[in-house]
Formats: sequence, C-alpha cells, structure tokens
Amino acid sequence: MTMFTYDGLPGRVVFGAGVARERLLGEVDLLGARRVLVIAGDTESEIATRLCAPFADRVAATFTQVRPHVPVEVAELARKASSEADADLVLSVGGGSTTGTAKAVALTTGLPVLAVPTTYAGSEVTPVWGMTDRGRKTTGTDRRVLPKTVVYDAELTVTLPVDLSVASGLNAVAHCVEAFWAPRRSPVASAMAEDGIRHLVAGLTTVTGDPTGPVGRGELLLGAYLAGSAFAVAGSGLHHKICHVLGGAFDLPHAQTHAIVLPHVLAYNAPHATEACARIARALGRTDIVTALRELGAGLGVPPDLRALGLNESDIDTVLAEIVAIAPPDNPTPVTEEGLRTILHAAWAGTDPMGPTP
Amino acid sequence: MTMFTYDGLPGRVVFGAGVARERLLGEVDLLGARRVLVIAGDTESEIATRLCAPFADRVAATFTQVRPHVPVEVAELARKASSEADADLVLSVGGGSTTGTAKAVALTTGLPVLAVPTTYAGSEVTPVWGMTDRGRKTTGTDRRVLPKTVVYDAELTVTLPVDLSVASGLNAVAHCVEAFWAPRRSPVASAMAEDGIRHLVAGLTTVTGDPTGPVGRGELLLGAYLAGSAFAVAGSGLHHKICHVLGGAFDLPHAQTHAIVLPHVLAYNAPHATEACARIARALGRTDIVTALRELGAGLGVPPDLRALGLNESDIDTVLAEIVAIAPPDNPTPVTEEGLRTILHAAWAGTDPMGPTP
Repeated sequence: MTMFTYDGLPGRVVFGAGVARERLLGEVDLLGARRVLVIAGDTESEIATRLCAPFADRVAATFTQVRPHVPVEVAELARKASSEADADLVLSVGGGSTTGTAKAVALTTGLPVLAVPTTYAGSEVTPVWGMTDRGRKTTGTDRRVLPKTVVYDAELTVTLPVDLSVASGLNAVAHCVEAFWAPRRSPVASAMAEDGIRHLVAGLTTVTGDPTGPVGRGELLLGAYLAGSAFAVAGSGLHHKICHVLGGAFDLPHAQTHAIVLPHVLAYNAPHATEACARIARALGRTDIVTALRELGAGLGVPPDLRALGLNESDIDTVLAEIVAIAPPDNPTPVTEEGLRTILHAAWAGTDPMGPTP
Repeated sequence: MTMFTYDGLPGRVVFGAGVARERLLGEVDLLGARRVLVIAGDTESEIATRLCAPFADRVAATFTQVRPHVPVEVAELARKASSEADADLVLSVGGGSTTGTAKAVALTTGLPVLAVPTTYAGSEVTPVWGMTDRGRKTTGTDRRVLPKTVVYDAELTVTLPVDLSVASGLNAVAHCVEAFWAPRRSPVASAMAEDGIRHLVAGLTTVTGDPTGPVGRGELLLGAYLAGSAFAVAGSGLHHKICHVLGGAFDLPHAQTHAIVLPHVLAYNAPHATEACARIARALGRTDIVTALRELGAGLGVPPDLRALGLNESDIDTVLAEIVAIAPPDNPTPVTEEGLRTILHAAWAGTDPMGPTP
C-alpha cells in the first residue's frame, strides 16, 4: 500500500532559452527589490553585468570572491557586503559555489535569493546549504536559503565544457535514480525523477555530439532542475552514502565514482524495487536498465570500474562498516556487510552485475 | 524549445491507509495548535469526533453547518465560530464543501488549515476558494487558503458511494489531461498529471468491482491528489471552459458531461499536442488514447453522448461564441467557432472522433 509524507517546497521557476536576458528585470520587480547584491564568480561577472544592465541602477553591490565549497571566510565577506549595501535581494549568477554563497547570506540575513544557474548543479532548488571551515564541510537544511525564484536559461550553459557538463549530468541521473528509494521518497518526487532521467539521458547524449546546440543544453538543464527538485524532497539513499564514503576516504573523482557505482546499487536493489525499475525502464525506453546505465557511462567516457580510478581491492573491506552504519534502514534490499562487499567488489572489478557471478 | 513558468506551492501531505487515526495528533502538534476549530458536515461529524479523540481537550469548537458550494452566510457563521473559539487552527474533515468552508475561514482570518478529505475532490491542494451568494458563485485564488497539511487516508473514503467515486474520479482524469496544455502548464504539473491518470484509471476500474477494497480506494485517492496538484499549478484549459459553459447554460450533470466531452477535445488537440498524447499513451498503456478514454467512460456507465443527457442539437450554436471568447489563446489547436462546432456536434451525436466524418 502506498504510504508517504511529502513536504512540498515553494519556489518560482522561469525556464527557457533567453529568459535571463528577457525576464530578469520582471522577476526582480516581482520580488520588490530596490537594492540588489549580485554574487558572481570571476568567470560569470561579465555575464552578470550584462544581465543586470536593465536594472543597473538597482545593483547596490557586486561580490565576486566566490570560492569552491563556500569557505566560511567567504560567507562572512559576502554577508558584510550585503549589510554594507543594505541589500534587499541576493541575485546569484553562476554554478553551485555561487548559489551556495548566496545561500550563506540568506541563512543569516533572511534575504530572498534569486538564482540564475550557469551549470547543472541543481542546488538552486534545494533548501540545503553547505560551508567549509579549514577544509571541514558543514551542511544543513533551512527553508530560508531556498531561492524564491530560479531563472533557468540554457543559453548561459552553452560554454560549460563538455566534460563538466557530463559530470554534472551523471550526478543528476544518480539523484533521480535514488529518489525512487530515498528516505523521503514520494509519488511527486518519483514523477519528477522519472522525467528527469528522460531529459538527462537525452541531454547527455546530445551535448557530447553538439556541445553548443540549444536542444541538448535545454534538455540537460531541464533534467538537472527535475533531479534537483526530486533530491530536495526525497533526500539521498544508499548509492550516495557509498559514494560519499568512497570519495572521502580515497579522494576518488566524484562524477566518475557515481557513474560506476550506480548500476551496481541498482542491480542490488532491483529485486525489491519493482516500481523504481518500472520507472527507470520507462524513462530509458528499455527493460535491461542496469546494462543501459552501464552503456550510458561507457558512451560518455566513464572508466569501467573503480580499479581504473585507483582504488585497491583491499580498500573495500576498510569502508564496509562505515557505510553499513549510515545506510538507510529502509533501503529496498536490506544493507549487510556481505551485500555491500558484493556491490563494491563488482564496482571495483567492473563485473557485469547482470552476468554470472565471477 | 521548452519554456515555462512554474509557481511551486508549499504544503505537507501525509498519505496512507490509517494515517488519520495514527498521525493526526502529530500533525496538529507540528502546527503548534492548542485551540482547534473542527469543521465537519453532518455525515462526517461522527468520524471527526473519533479522529479528534486523541486531542479532544484541544477541540475548541465544532462547526457542522456545512452546505454545498459554501453559501456566504455559512462562511460568516464559521468565521464567527472561529473567532468565538479563539481558534489557532481550522481542521476540516469532509469533502469539497467542508474543505471550502475551512478555506473561507482562512481567507479572512489567516488561520492555518489542516484538511482531512473524505472524497476525491482535490480542492485540498489548491489555493482556490469559492463561495456562493444567492446562487451566484464567486471564486478566487489566495495562498492563505491553501491547507498547510493534508492527511489523506483511503480508509475514510471506503463508504463513498461508487457513483460519486466514479464521478469524482472522472473529473480528476479531466484535470490531468488538461494539465498538459492548460495556460500554466509545466514539466512538474505534467509529470504529476501523467501519474495521476495512471492511478485514477487503476482506481476507477478497481473500485467499481470492489467498492470497499483498500487497493482501489488508495489508487483513486492518490490519483485525486496528483490531479488536484497538477490543476492547482497548471489551471484549466479548453475542455473545462466547454464543460463550464454547457453546465451553466443547460444544467447538465457535471461528471458525465466531462467524461463525454474529454475524448473529443483530446481528438481536436491531438495533432498539435504531441507530448500530451505521448504522456497519455504511457499512462494508459495504449496508443489509441481517444478510443481508450471513450471506453473508460463507457465501462463506468457514462452515456455515449450529450444527446442522452438532454442536450438539443440546436443548443450547440447558442454557446459557440461564449466558449470561443473564453478559450485559452494558446490551446494547442487554435479554437475557432467552426472547430468548436465540430467538437460539440460529435460530443452531442456520440460520433467516434477517430472514425470517418459522418
């Protein structure tokens, strides 16, 4: 029997090619803003200046000292800039770190955020914030940091290098797949995630062949939005716990680890996740979904196994207990050390999880 | 190219068989309520008393004078009850009119609403309110009337007569189909609507054979929730305008009119609504979607045409101009008097819109 709790998040989304140029002023107006703090990294500050030209008189300050993972010093500087400018709106133009800096300002000031993403991070639709203090990451959830409005314009993502686009897109696919069995799963998150997979796969396969074409970029951006929205309400599951521990312990590359591990977690959960499998099959248009995910990664240049990323076979046993300890208790297939060893060994060796056991 | 604006609505949903019994107190607590105004019609007042037993000491007043379409006098009495009870929460237990009475209180008082629906109305997830003054209906949209929390418990709907359940379910199907081309359509509304159709069709076909079975009731309730959510953000399109005018002018039965007209509007829009058709086909599991919708209605006892509901052929021409005037300008197939005459004549005669023109 269907049973779920779903906390719907508010938020306005304006999506379309050219909307940042054409509709940003209208959205600033809608939020009643007169003194805007613009946050944009060095790479995006030129774009930001161009986008803000129609309301240049309302730009009270521009903050460009964005750094990856939002160091607390940067957050403090941005808050200071906001306070000195007497800002009534934080407008971020950039990727995940830029949105993250705007969220850090909102967290302590309560100011509304208008986000204009230039990558496929998805964090602009989540109430999750993160900051780092001397390399240590702290995260939290607070509705105040959830942007009031997001303006998605695929034209702004055309220059994002293909390898970064693929990495973002693969992360987003993992968010979608996990939404089906994550702790706060719901029919709404699942519906968004199923379509997210559809758009992400279309976008990933198109963008690699036509990096500047608007169709692939639009599909990737729409998929990233749906993936972020699904993750925001469903949370993350076993797959993300595995990748989080592996990444932290062995400094493995984030996106590639995700792409390698995901089919193995799917194969592990599949026998007890009928609806997830049906949704993934519909989204991919084929029933051999584990193979399809492996082929998707291979076609995008993802190495076949964790061994190729530098993981040692002996590393596996050292992280089992840590992963089991944080694995969601309601994962479709109960998580045991033995089960986890099977997953990780197959991901390490590149074994086909649908093939005969080696 | 995909282009849309989406205003996401907040709101918490707790869904599951038995949750009204088991989790209502927790949800009242979560809203911090100490003085609850309970609104329940005569039919549901016994259920309401039973559900409120775990927090009977916090029930400050109970209002049972619920009437269909929320007459303004009833709204005023309910507001008076709220004020005299010094209520800090309005808890509604009932169908659309009960939820509507709670919304009328929220509209002027700003009090939060916790809704426990006992039918498949769907209004509990929309910010739309409606009241009638001497038979004249006024409606409006205000986020204050959107319930903060909805507790969906299929057990409470088991006693809803099959004919009313079918009528509600068919209305909900129409909301889903229209969400694909309604004025405020978006990928999120469409994803919810596609799954809504899936659950509604499963529920409708199950409930007629097994009226008290929990599976069909659960499917219908989930479908009604998704349909209401899609309608809340997408709005209504040509089909609803047609039914609204026909219903008002000739006093036709609401649900049957919907079920008869919908396949004809779908056939009219289909050539210019590729994605809508693909989604409906996926939801229904077949590609002849117009025929499938007609068969769904026929299987549920819906008459084959508007003639059977008492509409005269000569009535058609009298409403064409009125419908064209309020038809959405961005309907997939442009709405002309000629096109509308074709739709209405086919719906009146029961012509198969996929067959040869008579």
